[in-house]
Amino acid sequence: MELVLAESALPPTPEEYGVGARVSLQPMSDRFIDIILGALDDAGGGQGTLRITTGVVSTLVSGGDEEALARYLTALIAAAARRSAGAHLTAQVMLSRGCPGEIACAFVSGPWGSEKPVVLEPTGVQVVAEWSLYPLLGVIDDTDDHMMPIMAAIDAAKVSGLFDSSDHYVTRLAGDLAEVIALVVTAWRRTGSWVQHVTTHLALSINSPTARSNS
Amino acid sequence: MELVLAESALPPTPEEYGVGARVSLQPMSDRFIDIILGALDDAGGGQGTLRITTGVVSTLVSGGDEEALARYLTALIAAAARRSAGAHLTAQVMLSRGCPGEIACAFVSGPWGSEKPVVLEPTGVQVVAEWSLYPLLGVIDDTDDHMMPIMAAIDAAKVSGLFDSSDHYVTRLAGDLAEVIALVVTAWRRTGSWVQHVTTHLALSINSPTARSNS
Repeated sequence: MELVLAESALPPTPEEYGVGARVSLQPMSDRFIDIILGALDDAGGGQGTLRITTGVVSTLVSGGDEEALARYLTALIAAAARRSAGAHLTAQVMLSRGCPGEIACAFVSGPWGSEKPVVLEPTGVQVVAEWSLYPLLGVIDDTDDHMMPIMAAIDAAKVSGLFDSSDHYVTRLAGDLAEVIALVVTAWRRTGSWVQHVTTHLALSINSPTARSNS
Repeated sequence: MELVLAESALPPTPEEYGVGARVSLQPMSDRFIDIILGALDDAGGGQGTLRITTGVVSTLVSGGDEEALARYLTALIAAAARRSAGAHLTAQVMLSRGCPGEIACAFVSGPWGSEKPVVLEPTGVQVVAEWSLYPLLGVIDDTDDHMMPIMAAIDAAKVSGLFDSSDHYVTRLAGDLAEVIALVVTAWRRTGSWVQHVTTHLALSINSPTARSNS
């Protein structure tokens, strides 16, 4: 890996730090095109410096900080849930930080993470979700204990009241969409306090007939 | 992280090594329940020792080796594509290896990975996919160059003819479903030659109206 130390003493911008998300919506409905395009329209083009770039498989959200990403993702998925009007909807979110060069991860100096929690207004949209968190670049204290940030994130989930269960490869969360997104974005940013390159994946399920039949 | 060396000199079984997958299907159709249940039925309960455990958000596939997982995932998604009959379908696949304890990753001795390619019969189902590969536990040669296995995987994709493009956080692949699954499972297992705990995520899109309008 090429290590390129930033020359400036200023903290990197989210863009310089490679902070961004990919998101996709799956309305299980014949009306899926209207629901997806309508939700993108409802959520707007992104406030401030945020850029929304749609693609064939997913939509890239970049150019903003962690709060801006969290607000946009919540607004987009809540809009899709409203437009789905009770139909089953899933959404996939991935977040990445600390690999601004995409393939060649340049090293960026500065405060990588933060203990600051992301706070969002509840949406009233209930979700069940499967979450995984991946600290990729060697842990700073050199013990190479890559499970430490993961355990810290799971502990935070348990305190939050959103923890549902642990399963193979994922942690299951349940609660308000905004609270789940806030928990995951907070944990992902916090893991940046120990590790530069951190990704996280969240698979969200709304109005699942399986969940209804189990309840 | 707790390091527990296996006492036996025998290589670990896939189960002991934590080899498994989670998969979910999203038919964008009012008929989504019939398509998903029908595809699970078509793919069968898993051959040999393979176990299929459905959940609210995704289905766990475990108890088999990499070839068995690859065959099952391909059969399941191809069956859903056939039953979708031209409707848009997406599927999410995650693969994990090397963390059999789920939360506490016990260390397992033995040959972790393999250069052997997974080979599957083409299905005739064309997909576009976004792929990410995560080597999690410290790289064996101690250079901590976690991008090396990722670059090796992207190079293999380029040689395969399935490489479409690199984008933020993902590599885009396009081709036959079976060839894409085989490429991803091969790269994931091969990364196990350098790193114990390796996960990979694949978001598949079939019959996308966006892809059609772009072609």
